[in-house]
Amino acid sequence: MNLGPGKEFDRIRGIIERIAEITGDASELGDDCALIPLGSTNLAISIDNSLENVHFRTDWLDFKEIGCRAASSALSDLAADGARPLGALVSLGVPANGKKNEDAAADIMAGVASMLHNVEAKVLGGDLTRSQEYIVDVCVIGEANRPVRRAGAREGDGLWVTGYLGGAALALEHFRAGKSMAAALRNRYACPEPRIEAGIWLADHGASAMIDISDGLAADAQHLAAASEVGLEINLEHIPCWENVAPLAAVASGEEFELLCTMPPTFGDASVSAFRSETGLQLSRIGTCLRGAGGRRGGVRLLDNNKPVALPAGYDHFA
Amino acid sequence: MNLGPGKEFDRIRGIIERIAEITGDASELGDDCALIPLGSTNLAISIDNSLENVHFRTDWLDFKEIGCRAASSALSDLAADGARPLGALVSLGVPANGKKNEDAAADIMAGVASMLHNVEAKVLGGDLTRSQEYIVDVCVIGEANRPVRRAGAREGDGLWVTGYLGGAALALEHFRAGKSMAAALRNRYACPEPRIEAGIWLADHGASAMIDISDGLAADAQHLAAASEVGLEINLEHIPCWENVAPLAAVASGEEFELLCTMPPTFGDASVSAFRSETGLQLSRIGTCLRGAGGRRGGVRLLDNNKPVALPAGYDHFA
Repeated sequence: MNLGPGKEFDRIRGIIERIAEITGDASELGDDCALIPLGSTNLAISIDNSLENVHFRTDWLDFKEIGCRAASSALSDLAADGARPLGALVSLGVPANGKKNEDAAADIMAGVASMLHNVEAKVLGGDLTRSQEYIVDVCVIGEANRPVRRAGAREGDGLWVTGYLGGAALALEHFRAGKSMAAALRNRYACPEPRIEAGIWLADHGASAMIDISDGLAADAQHLAAASEVGLEINLEHIPCWENVAPLAAVASGEEFELLCTMPPTFGDASVSAFRSETGLQLSRIGTCLRGAGGRRGGVRLLDNNKPVALPAGYDHFA
Repeated sequence: MNLGPGKEFDRIRGIIERIAEITGDASELGDDCALIPLGSTNLAISIDNSLENVHFRTDWLDFKEIGCRAASSALSDLAADGARPLGALVSLGVPANGKKNEDAAADIMAGVASMLHNVEAKVLGGDLTRSQEYIVDVCVIGEANRPVRRAGAREGDGLWVTGYLGGAALALEHFRAGKSMAAALRNRYACPEPRIEAGIWLADHGASAMIDISDGLAADAQHLAAASEVGLEINLEHIPCWENVAPLAAVASGEEFELLCTMPPTFGDASVSAFRSETGLQLSRIGTCLRGAGGRRGGVRLLDNNKPVALPAGYDHFA
């Protein structure tokens, strides 16, 4: 599967090539979830690691929030395939220094279990090891009757996004500056809600391609464009922004856990109303699929009232 | 599910209690695999984290061996349930310092993919993040028609173990002392073989309870005894020892990845011959299941020619 640009993805391309040398075919690797066909349905599985000082800091979040956030982040990959969660296995690494950390492990798992409980899933198993820093690696398992992949967008499809973007980056700014913030903003970072029901609804209503925007809309649009081998034109003025966030900051903001998808051209106002009333979420048309990968930077062209704008880079672990 | 003694398992008990407060029931947690019933079969899933300087050292093993060992360790949990592997998802953490580590990630995954290929399974997906130290967390998925759990041993069942024990600890001693060793010994630690075919065979031939002995036979026998609520009597003189390893060292040796199981009293010499010819492995009767948890230290009594011997402690991440 084609991935967008970046050093992190160059590494992943290198890894997939090596795996293909051994197994002959690794073309299915690289999507949000792995799929295993099961009779009339599919098992969807994804793994997502949250590391101290990379994904979270213990002076910003409490341990329950750390667990909640790690579970959300993994569940978001199920949402991106339109899958319904069944459960999760969690590898926990905790430093081996006394009572404080004993509670920490249980608190992290309470956060994971609560988030899973919210989406009618449960903790299925796990692993506990001593580690230098906290590690919360969550493997989620779900079921998808009609899984939606990153590939599948067609010329003429509309490009849509759920919710309002930029809150995660704004919350991060507040954490970094040591400033307090409203609960709604804090939770965009501390305990974001995976878009499970939205993902299932969009899959059921004809989504041709879908991805979560954990790397930021700009970066993940490039993955979707590369996988679908289409160009994408995104209209900056149509980006649904979180309060006090500028559109360019909103498309750059990572770990949003909203869904970016392409819908057939027939998908219009009536469908949007139905979506909103069933999920309670915003759904905004922000662009269009074009033929081939004609655009700039991995097939994605960003326009601000018809004027081309440089695409911001996504978060890259190895930039 | 009941677990054996130890600080690591006290923490796990604490975690399971917290999860139960949220989800109402967590009694299925604690076995080698999580099971999800699927029509006439079961999905078996397990997660197992391998951390630099906890589970491996980069000056002892090359990166391909690190991947191989991590995959083996996770696959061993499927073997313990009598499950046939389908594939694995791998969370990789690698330090972000240059070209050496770029190759390392691909080398680790080549080791994982090779080990999976050996057991007719494949890499299904993964996650790549920057980390302080190397992390290889492997979530394996398999299928079990007749899954065997830690609970299920009955009074009068024989206690059996595959292979020869103590090689992993002996190899570790050599690594620590900087001594070279024969390939067979080195591989007991560097690239152990998960007992997949043995696990399936034992499940098909009536195993009443099974566990892998990744914590060492003495510790894992206590888990099996606790889960099954039986006593176990182990005869030290019947322990199948790796060359130059004493029986007491063999039962203490961790990360052996052999299988410990209980078989009905009718399981005898003819069955052992069939097992050996089909798997190429040794199978040794090392003890018997007794009524209730009457023995010492979690229901396990160790005898050396009928003389009681103190049970060695298993590896404990939080001792």
